[in-house]
Amino acid sequence: MNDKLPLKGLIVLEFSQFLAGPSAGLRLADLGARVIKIERPNGGDACRTMALKNIFIGNDSLLFHTINRNKESFTADFKNEDDKEWVKKLILKADVLTHNFRPGIMEKAGLDYSSVKAINSRIIYAAVTGYGKRGPWKDKPGQDLLIQSLSGLSFLSGSGDAPLPFGLSIADMICGTHLVQGILACLYKRQITGEGSFVEVSLLESILDFQFEFLTTWFNGGSLPVKSKVNNAHSLLGAPYGLYKTADGYLALAMADLCTLANALELPVLKDYINEKDIFNNRDKIKSFIKQHLVTNTNNFWKSKMDTAKLWCMPVMNWKELLAHESYKSLQMQQAITTHDGQTIHALRMPVHINNKKIFAAKPAPQLGQHTEAIKDELLNEKFV
Amino acid sequence: MNDKLPLKGLIVLEFSQFLAGPSAGLRLADLGARVIKIERPNGGDACRTMALKNIFIGNDSLLFHTINRNKESFTADFKNEDDKEWVKKLILKADVLTHNFRPGIMEKAGLDYSSVKAINSRIIYAAVTGYGKRGPWKDKPGQDLLIQSLSGLSFLSGSGDAPLPFGLSIADMICGTHLVQGILACLYKRQITGEGSFVEVSLLESILDFQFEFLTTWFNGGSLPVKSKVNNAHSLLGAPYGLYKTADGYLALAMADLCTLANALELPVLKDYINEKDIFNNRDKIKSFIKQHLVTNTNNFWKSKMDTAKLWCMPVMNWKELLAHESYKSLQMQQAITTHDGQTIHALRMPVHINNKKIFAAKPAPQLGQHTEAIKDELLNEKFV
Repeated sequence: MNDKLPLKGLIVLEFSQFLAGPSAGLRLADLGARVIKIERPNGGDACRTMALKNIFIGNDSLLFHTINRNKESFTADFKNEDDKEWVKKLILKADVLTHNFRPGIMEKAGLDYSSVKAINSRIIYAAVTGYGKRGPWKDKPGQDLLIQSLSGLSFLSGSGDAPLPFGLSIADMICGTHLVQGILACLYKRQITGEGSFVEVSLLESILDFQFEFLTTWFNGGSLPVKSKVNNAHSLLGAPYGLYKTADGYLALAMADLCTLANALELPVLKDYINEKDIFNNRDKIKSFIKQHLVTNTNNFWKSKMDTAKLWCMPVMNWKELLAHESYKSLQMQQAITTHDGQTIHALRMPVHINNKKIFAAKPAPQLGQHTEAIKDELLNEKFV
Repeated sequence: MNDKLPLKGLIVLEFSQFLAGPSAGLRLADLGARVIKIERPNGGDACRTMALKNIFIGNDSLLFHTINRNKESFTADFKNEDDKEWVKKLILKADVLTHNFRPGIMEKAGLDYSSVKAINSRIIYAAVTGYGKRGPWKDKPGQDLLIQSLSGLSFLSGSGDAPLPFGLSIADMICGTHLVQGILACLYKRQITGEGSFVEVSLLESILDFQFEFLTTWFNGGSLPVKSKVNNAHSLLGAPYGLYKTADGYLALAMADLCTLANALELPVLKDYINEKDIFNNRDKIKSFIKQHLVTNTNNFWKSKMDTAKLWCMPVMNWKELLAHESYKSLQMQQAITTHDGQTIHALRMPVHINNKKIFAAKPAPQLGQHTEAIKDELLNEKFV
């Protein structure tokens, strides 16, 4: 399979650290590119020491291992002129460069876009920032929770008035996907025109784009979205949209025709609200009736009634329940990876299928500087022009 | 600018409806592709009638207008043989085809990958499903809230035990970004090999990939992530990570050295917990001390102390506050679009910058079938081979 991966033959230099940039590098690697992390000799990618729940595998955090599997590591000290020459030689061989330094750092190292372009005009140079290059926040730390909090995102979830963050690194993850999109679009263009490009994304712009439903509704409808006080799941959608407690669990109800729902649940009071506008205007009242009703019987009892009526309903499951389910098993999402010191890590495969194949990649994350000498021998052994 | 967009010259046929597929089409359009929606003559993309908060612009929902701006519309009835011939002629001209029908529908229409490949071997054929092609859920509705609920995602946010959905269509949005990635990688490959490809993504696999931090921590650490009972923001990160109420608002605190934080906030009790393991083992205790302390003074008071100490802290803002901020204004994220009946819609631009340019696109969403005849004249006027 690997010989047929779409990005085979491409070389990506990853100056990025932490999550957004390296998650993009991982996707490019899984799609077939050769991704070389360029790391400081002293410590490398700061994610190596940033542990979730204090879990380390060997010297590096599990998080580092997971995001940086299927990559190589080349160490270079920007303050050392010899190392800088090596990096410039690598740039000459590379197709893509990514970094997530704050504005000014790559300029200072002589590795800003115009300097890199002067070395290799075909390169796709891709930069991630927190807040873009301009504006009062441009030098602030581009950290996920801070971006969530500034962007209005924390007022989307829950049924109360207090802000509530999404419980994962959503700005990093979304921004990483946008970075890949920009890089791949410009690689396509390069095959037509021969020219490289400069791609820029920011956590803040990515998380704004992600909220387009809410922002454009506000821009065009004149009022800010109001969350349901009962089981809120999407402030712009009407009743019964939400998660409901039953006697033994929770059920998710998506959009539903209220008359059909009234019959399926034997809850005739809902028929007083079948005017098209009721699902918004009487949203919380309708949801309260359903809430009081569903708690009186079990998940299976209600679900079979709603399934019979072809209503959109599913049980709420935790990870244990999901992983035990035949549907999860049939996806084959997991892969085992053996690290350089012989330990086994269980990771997920990448989610995109190509030509009827699931894409697995057994290569572990690199040790710091593991491939420096091999890369010098293999790629950089001619004289620098 | 538009002449220089990276995907200029590409033709995308979008059989997709609703959000995941069409959001991918919008990104491809904004990157320069010509995206033609292939719609049923009777009603078209079901999103045309699916309104958020009942907002319509002309005959179509605001949501449809927003996701389908910068596209064309071609109507075809799969049950009509003439229309099917027109679609096949279009396939001959196209570079990409996307659809999000359930397994079996495109097969029945004679438009499955092998049939389409027989017409145009260079095409990238990209399919979105809810749960993949196999497994007991394969024919279930691939709806965002249902996928969130099945995937464990609803146990990530909030500080309580009850499931809590993310308040937006996250599975659709993430899966759409993965679809673009697969398509672009295969377009790049096609420029090298001349061969088309078959790309498949599913909402469920995308949302599993999105939770990789939690799943791999569980797989490799042996225990399920436990949420903080105090201001939970990411169950795998230690204190003080979270949002905190102050006397006049909320503050977001990201990772912080506890000793520095103790000094900055004049909260010496934190110094009892500066052992590296305390931020996990005494997470809720530490966060409770901070919570009780921060509520006694204002956002500005605390923020200036934490800024001085270079701690990672930002105010929690709602959309109104964000949009009034200089940083938002400097991004120029908004664009005005004039619809075919002369109304103005305010939308966001796409978040990726290319070659120092923000990418705006003034073309509105198409009326149903608006471009059918023009496309027949322009692209399909020679005899079908």
